[in-house]
Amino acid sequence: MSDKFPKPVDPPRRVLMGPGPSDVAPQVLAALAAPTVGHLDPYFLKLMDEVQQMLREVFQTKNKLTLAVSGTGSAGMEACIVNLVEPGDKMLICVNGVFGGRMADVATRYGAEVMTIERPFGEVFTADEVQQAVKEFQPKLVGIVHAETSTGALQPIEAISKAVHAAGALLVLDCVTSLGGLPVKIDDWQIDAAYSGTQKCLSCPPGLAPVTFSDRAVEVMETRDSKVASWYLDMSMVRNYWSDQSRAYHHTAPINMNYGLHQALRNVLDEGLENAFTRHQRNHLALRAGLEAMGLNYAVAEEYRLPMLNAVLIPNGVDDKAVRSRLLNEFGIEIGGGLGPMAGKTWRIGLMGEACTQRNVLLFLAALENCLHAAGHSISPGAGVGAANEYYAS
Amino acid sequence: MSDKFPKPVDPPRRVLMGPGPSDVAPQVLAALAAPTVGHLDPYFLKLMDEVQQMLREVFQTKNKLTLAVSGTGSAGMEACIVNLVEPGDKMLICVNGVFGGRMADVATRYGAEVMTIERPFGEVFTADEVQQAVKEFQPKLVGIVHAETSTGALQPIEAISKAVHAAGALLVLDCVTSLGGLPVKIDDWQIDAAYSGTQKCLSCPPGLAPVTFSDRAVEVMETRDSKVASWYLDMSMVRNYWSDQSRAYHHTAPINMNYGLHQALRNVLDEGLENAFTRHQRNHLALRAGLEAMGLNYAVAEEYRLPMLNAVLIPNGVDDKAVRSRLLNEFGIEIGGGLGPMAGKTWRIGLMGEACTQRNVLLFLAALENCLHAAGHSISPGAGVGAANEYYAS
Repeated sequence: MSDKFPKPVDPPRRVLMGPGPSDVAPQVLAALAAPTVGHLDPYFLKLMDEVQQMLREVFQTKNKLTLAVSGTGSAGMEACIVNLVEPGDKMLICVNGVFGGRMADVATRYGAEVMTIERPFGEVFTADEVQQAVKEFQPKLVGIVHAETSTGALQPIEAISKAVHAAGALLVLDCVTSLGGLPVKIDDWQIDAAYSGTQKCLSCPPGLAPVTFSDRAVEVMETRDSKVASWYLDMSMVRNYWSDQSRAYHHTAPINMNYGLHQALRNVLDEGLENAFTRHQRNHLALRAGLEAMGLNYAVAEEYRLPMLNAVLIPNGVDDKAVRSRLLNEFGIEIGGGLGPMAGKTWRIGLMGEACTQRNVLLFLAALENCLHAAGHSISPGAGVGAANEYYAS
Repeated sequence: MSDKFPKPVDPPRRVLMGPGPSDVAPQVLAALAAPTVGHLDPYFLKLMDEVQQMLREVFQTKNKLTLAVSGTGSAGMEACIVNLVEPGDKMLICVNGVFGGRMADVATRYGAEVMTIERPFGEVFTADEVQQAVKEFQPKLVGIVHAETSTGALQPIEAISKAVHAAGALLVLDCVTSLGGLPVKIDDWQIDAAYSGTQKCLSCPPGLAPVTFSDRAVEVMETRDSKVASWYLDMSMVRNYWSDQSRAYHHTAPINMNYGLHQALRNVLDEGLENAFTRHQRNHLALRAGLEAMGLNYAVAEEYRLPMLNAVLIPNGVDDKAVRSRLLNEFGIEIGGGLGPMAGKTWRIGLMGEACTQRNVLLFLAALENCLHAAGHSISPGAGVGAANEYYAS
């Protein structure tokens, strides 16, 4: 091929410890590269059934309407909202980070009357606050984020779900970052609609959005007065294609991305959900021991910290971008900067799925020590790695 | 891994001669499996620039706003419409197949006042018809399909574009099936918005939708009164992420799918657009010689036939599904059935991108002869392959 064309794809080798995508297992990359078949091929239809079945296990649900939307996590958010909201419907959205804010934006665009309650970035909501707002606003839907990728805060859901349902509303849950790394109990918690992404704790490349809808949510969809505004995301058609009865053509599914998700889900279920949750927690605590030994502090109170997304305050006088750039360019490690009001104030260190390993925790701590030292920040040599190793040995 | 999990991905080997997806080149599959990097990684940002530049070459345009939407072709359709339509805007849509009908559905959902003109499946529109309708309806936008995947008909565009612009409207073009296999001259034809899919003549797996917008279309977007209803497809944000200046995070791009598209575009440009068009035409004519020698007839008049999608009438008394099922299960060849009113009446034989080869034409004709013979349809033995070979030798 002549020089006038770009060079072939040959990405640098990274350790993906940012807010996602996370590292992808070699078997998942290999599955992506399996030969493409047609979107109505019997082989692919069977594979779709298997993806649905495995997604139900990961979501801990029996919901029939559980599938992978043909877009990234934000398309999953939009799918949940556009199918449940009709113009003029009231939706209460709990905003304590970028993704709660995004949910409010999406719902407003589709004509919902949106009321938000807010908490500073890094904090979470109490059930009382939500109950109060629900009582006042009488919404049809309530939206909340389980694991705020922008802040690293974990929102307890069970009591909130009870309050929402007691008021006769439906609950929409963002579990983009939690699914596969923390318990997401769709049925036990009585979640009505939930969406996730493939590129966080499921460790598949980005491109699909797992979603699940309760029977109650399906009933709301089926009794809509208006058509769903988005043709592409209209579940009344998408579900026919994914259903084992009809298989009516809707759009051409991303075949190879579904291959990748299939293998990623096999990996998660092969390890076992409980084992995966334990691994995320253990590596999080080791990372935390290391970071604290280096004098860094978390941006989120201890009881609400996400294991898979560690938001820490950037030490005074340290240049955010210079450190992240050195981590990336010299050590090949990606971490995330802060989003929204946290920009320049926090680092977001991901321990998601395949990237959540003892090796990565130690690698990162060693590299960070080097970067902070180079930035003129004094740290007792080896303190971070030492403390993490101590935790692992305990 | 225990037996309770589905078996690993291991698709059957197919020859994809349906309406898409088409066969994918090994280099494209290999690119899909390259290691994932972050969506803000300098390597990925450079790759996005290269994808844009190559898309501009394939679309034959200098349009700055040219990129790959993170969804399949139908998401591209929705992206073009939702960004240009505001509630109450008038849109004229030319419907002569399933995809024109889909465009009307999408525009109606987003609040456009839609007027359609119709032609039977398999026929095309004259510039006079469109001019007449534009004069009468005074639309802001006109939508038309270049290559109707559902019927196999090629719509001449140039004169229609002149008529649309003379009336002060914008023209939206569906080139899902034509791009890469037939000339699509966005600038010469003055197309204002166009969308395609990756899984037809570009021969990348489905999952991305190339789109391009003229400066005039961008101006319309920039002077909207209302927000774009779809957050996910809102070009005012998507373009900031793809722009070389801002790179503002919007959603997490499907990294590996973009790797695949990058390699697929390299393949197309390496062959050269003109060479690719000639190859599509040549194999189409060979296939046609073979099919006609076997007594099959096209469903579309000669002057409007798509080279990459051959819609032929199923011979009387032949069981559509039985033949397609034998082709698939015994010979590993996928062709498409009819859509909409053509269901059960036509076969759609794709010769798209990588699947458009002399070998596939001959393979298919030999297999089809066997299937038709088994279905009790008498054909002079070897007639189809013979006629195709004769064409190739001429």
